[in-house]
Amino acid sequence: MKKALILLAPGFETIEATTPMDVLRRCQIPVVVISVNGEDKHGVMHTDELTVTSSHSVSVKADYTLSSAEGRAVVSEAEMVILPGGFPGYVNLAKNKEVGEILKKYKREGKLIGAICGAPTALKANNIAPGSRITCHTSVKDDMTAGGYLYTGSAVERCGNLITGKGAGLSLEFALECALALTDAERVTEVKKKMEL
Amino acid sequence: MKKALILLAPGFETIEATTPMDVLRRCQIPVVVISVNGEDKHGVMHTDELTVTSSHSVSVKADYTLSSAEGRAVVSEAEMVILPGGFPGYVNLAKNKEVGEILKKYKREGKLIGAICGAPTALKANNIAPGSRITCHTSVKDDMTAGGYLYTGSAVERCGNLITGKGAGLSLEFALECALALTDAERVTEVKKKMEL
Repeated sequence: MKKALILLAPGFETIEATTPMDVLRRCQIPVVVISVNGEDKHGVMHTDELTVTSSHSVSVKADYTLSSAEGRAVVSEAEMVILPGGFPGYVNLAKNKEVGEILKKYKREGKLIGAICGAPTALKANNIAPGSRITCHTSVKDDMTAGGYLYTGSAVERCGNLITGKGAGLSLEFALECALALTDAERVTEVKKKMEL
Repeated sequence: MKKALILLAPGFETIEATTPMDVLRRCQIPVVVISVNGEDKHGVMHTDELTVTSSHSVSVKADYTLSSAEGRAVVSEAEMVILPGGFPGYVNLAKNKEVGEILKKYKREGKLIGAICGAPTALKANNIAPGSRITCHTSVKDDMTAGGYLYTGSAVERCGNLITGKGAGLSLEFALECALALTDAERVTEVKKKMEL
């Protein structure tokens, strides 16, 4: 079964991270949550902590830290990496060198990359597939366009192995698109029904 | 400012709990998360633990336990209590006597009660406002109807001080309706815009 990893940096957007966890696991797609170092909204650095606090003060426990052997093993095994937005979560992801290496490796190996809200800026920071059709939060649209990405303003975009989402209110649409990339449509339809969609 | 409390029992539905946390806090409504005792999906009892694990294995840290002095103080101060669904989370809420007392007290004092998915069964278990128009997950519809509630099948229902939601896929609609009950429409509209809705 294809595995997905979700990167949690301090100040992640709560539902942009938790919705893919929920939807993918409902689809029986194994999800591993990896914590990433970064500064919280008060400028305090968090290093190698399993519990990560969102931009709206929701503390979620990751499975592994990115620096752990287990964390590194999951990075190698997984078929998709998902980057939630949120402030300063997406800035933490965009400036983290290890995250950059993961994105370059996944791009090189033809694996899936998902990014929502401000997180597509991590793609730009690492020059991942410029020229791709993408969507992102309005506040980073100009930044992405300047990087050579084709901003569409859609709720969700899939372009090659890149899946992007617009913002927190479209977390569900983004998560469902990620699920569709990892499993069959029949299973996703069944899960939507149980979620009353 | 009106305060809301969200009850987290083992096996809560991930986004049914985290979406109101996110949306209400974005609306600057103070949200306090209270952990509730209960059995997880493996039948293991969890008592007075701050970190609670959802039905899809997402561990979220509550602010207080229900049994703590701070937890009890928040119950008295808040204007709304929100009950996420999820299995066995909603069963834990429905059979918990302290939760029952909160629901009866809130009903008596004319405070707001929100429940989504399977959680409206906690209303039935405590005979809270039978005869109300409600919605809930299809799987507990017959149970609610037998209890004298008027099931509409809508995404969200507001009837008096009762707000109910249908299921996980409608967590956002449910959270926005809860926000509207606690703050002004202008603020909610502004938050929706920032969420790209």
